[in-house]
Amino acid sequence: MNFARLLMERCDELGAITDEPGRITRTFASPAMRRANKLVGAWMREAGLQVREDAAFNLIGRWNSTQRGAKTFLLGSHLDTVRDAGRYDGPLGVLTAIAAVQSLKARGVVLPFNVEIVGFSDEEGVRYQTAYLGSRAFAGTLTAADLARIEEKQIVKARRNHKEFLGYAEVHIEQGPVLEKHNLPVAVVTAIAGQSRLRVEFHGTAGHAGTVPMPMRHDALAGAAEFILAVESLAKSKSGLVATVGKIEAMPGASNVISGKTALTLDVRDQQDARRLAAVKALRAKAGAIAKRRGLKLTWTPVQQTAAVQCDKTLTRIFSKCVARRGLTVLKLPSGAGHDGAALAAMCPVAMLFVRCKGGISHNPAESVKAADAGVGVAVLAEFVERLAKEYA
Amino acid sequence: MNFARLLMERCDELGAITDEPGRITRTFASPAMRRANKLVGAWMREAGLQVREDAAFNLIGRWNSTQRGAKTFLLGSHLDTVRDAGRYDGPLGVLTAIAAVQSLKARGVVLPFNVEIVGFSDEEGVRYQTAYLGSRAFAGTLTAADLARIEEKQIVKARRNHKEFLGYAEVHIEQGPVLEKHNLPVAVVTAIAGQSRLRVEFHGTAGHAGTVPMPMRHDALAGAAEFILAVESLAKSKSGLVATVGKIEAMPGASNVISGKTALTLDVRDQQDARRLAAVKALRAKAGAIAKRRGLKLTWTPVQQTAAVQCDKTLTRIFSKCVARRGLTVLKLPSGAGHDGAALAAMCPVAMLFVRCKGGISHNPAESVKAADAGVGVAVLAEFVERLAKEYA
Repeated sequence: MNFARLLMERCDELGAITDEPGRITRTFASPAMRRANKLVGAWMREAGLQVREDAAFNLIGRWNSTQRGAKTFLLGSHLDTVRDAGRYDGPLGVLTAIAAVQSLKARGVVLPFNVEIVGFSDEEGVRYQTAYLGSRAFAGTLTAADLARIEEKQIVKARRNHKEFLGYAEVHIEQGPVLEKHNLPVAVVTAIAGQSRLRVEFHGTAGHAGTVPMPMRHDALAGAAEFILAVESLAKSKSGLVATVGKIEAMPGASNVISGKTALTLDVRDQQDARRLAAVKALRAKAGAIAKRRGLKLTWTPVQQTAAVQCDKTLTRIFSKCVARRGLTVLKLPSGAGHDGAALAAMCPVAMLFVRCKGGISHNPAESVKAADAGVGVAVLAEFVERLAKEYA
Repeated sequence: MNFARLLMERCDELGAITDEPGRITRTFASPAMRRANKLVGAWMREAGLQVREDAAFNLIGRWNSTQRGAKTFLLGSHLDTVRDAGRYDGPLGVLTAIAAVQSLKARGVVLPFNVEIVGFSDEEGVRYQTAYLGSRAFAGTLTAADLARIEEKQIVKARRNHKEFLGYAEVHIEQGPVLEKHNLPVAVVTAIAGQSRLRVEFHGTAGHAGTVPMPMRHDALAGAAEFILAVESLAKSKSGLVATVGKIEAMPGASNVISGKTALTLDVRDQQDARRLAAVKALRAKAGAIAKRRGLKLTWTPVQQTAAVQCDKTLTRIFSKCVARRGLTVLKLPSGAGHDGAALAAMCPVAMLFVRCKGGISHNPAESVKAADAGVGVAVLAEFVERLAKEYA
């Protein structure tokens, strides 16, 4: 059986299931998500798995080991999407796992551990603006604040016992351009970057664009511009650090008025938390110095902060071996985007494999993956599970 | 009579006439403008002037010379306002002229020319987004494009014969902070700055803030930030030039997305057209260089361009003498904002006197003028007219 072609056809078929006709949108516990679980559940059954949905609407397909008291290894990703999504962000990982298991079963492989493939119900967090509802319910790390925001209070019952699990492995599209640049189909993920999100405001003095001489200005937008370049410059000088200003508002926002206040967002990520925190600190000092020199006032408001998650060294080494065995250069990459793996890390060791996507584009209907690359993903994941079996035998 | 106090009381009384209760808004040909003309017309009559309204709703108060065939000197400013305006931008000039004429008449001054005080009906251009409707109708410089935009086609009939007029003098609040900085009540205006307005866009590549490494980015907002600093730096390096980016939009405008396109406005002003045009050219080259180095595409769109208007040297010299005679330093300033004088310059020599306003604030209810400064304005304008009489005697 051509598992790569099967996988690509399934991504297309799943991509037709949506809450919004004409584009792909599947949000937590929506009608489309129920239909998606039904379809993917049927494919799981076809692969010989025992299928159920947990209390958090996570779809679980289980392959029982013949060994009594065996622990379980988890494979998976998510089946929900952003609004107007592509076909691969999430589904590729779930369907790669099904194809890998199907190929192992076809070869009569017997495992010393159970395998559960999980299609998590909420990674993108579109419905409640709170990411990882599915995987955090599974890992038992939902907070009271999360539960206060959602209707489906029963999802806490999806919590599983950490002792059951040996680890978690996830295949996901890269969502970035590095694999394409290196002309490689897959990469081994080293860590899921930690993230600091902040709101930064420069307060100056609004004024008439024609009547206030340059030396008398306290232009909030000019201060913000200087800060944006400082952000870029710092991030460029530190390997592994990325920092982005993606949103800016100059107020009052008229062509003939000097900006009296300019607000911007700051997003800083690094796989090393210490490096990220040092960067945020340095940028705060830089913003303060810019504001002081320009006679502006600075407000600096942390919005959100998530710690980096390191991928497990043993699992990552096994992934690397499987990639090398196919004659491919082993490219190791941090993940700048968040993934279910970050939530699962609270309960067991995690590892991830990235598959190349066209132009690094994601969260967009133009998301595109080559069948050959998806095929490498299936083969690497299948071999990964087989090698694991030797480790745990 | 205390003409300064009279003037301030009249500014307050006129400020109560509005199209929008609770704030000052008077737009071209509106009910409030009709009431304003009626009130100011009554004050003109009180000052012994012949009052009429022309076809463009300009209010005209005439003081006839005893000399046969005498030409006419114009004084004035506008009576319309922006939305949510202050009390002084416009009205101060009209009411200063009435007070000055009243003081001259009180002293029995006889003039060898007629004086017409004009309260122009539209300088701000709020109703039709086309400035100077009143003064351009008066000067006969309305275009077919202007007429196509407005209902009141008859305003062309307000056109006057250029040969009637000796000149035009306007008193106006500075709308900037320079007089306050120099601790002076008035300044003599050298020119009304020319203005270039442009829309500048940097086109880059949108991308995920976490997954695109810094060296692979084509961040449109970072390019725009570099340009904003270049604009500021160039304007700071050239005396008399002001350049402003007041509005910016980074698209798609999400905190976790690298901007794929950033648009901004550019406003460049100078009393010397050659200097302004050279600055625009230099900034275009700079934007091009920034775009090229960063792998961005640049679009550069001129939106509007107005030439500078030089104030008449003779009239300006007379204003300067009158200021100096009061023991005040003669501060000469270009006007970065537009004024009716710019439209009147098409028909006769023009001159302007700025009066200090608090914090340089205008187009705002917080607009504030000291009675003492307004008094200096009245005295200087009255003496200006008397000295003119000697010039033209």
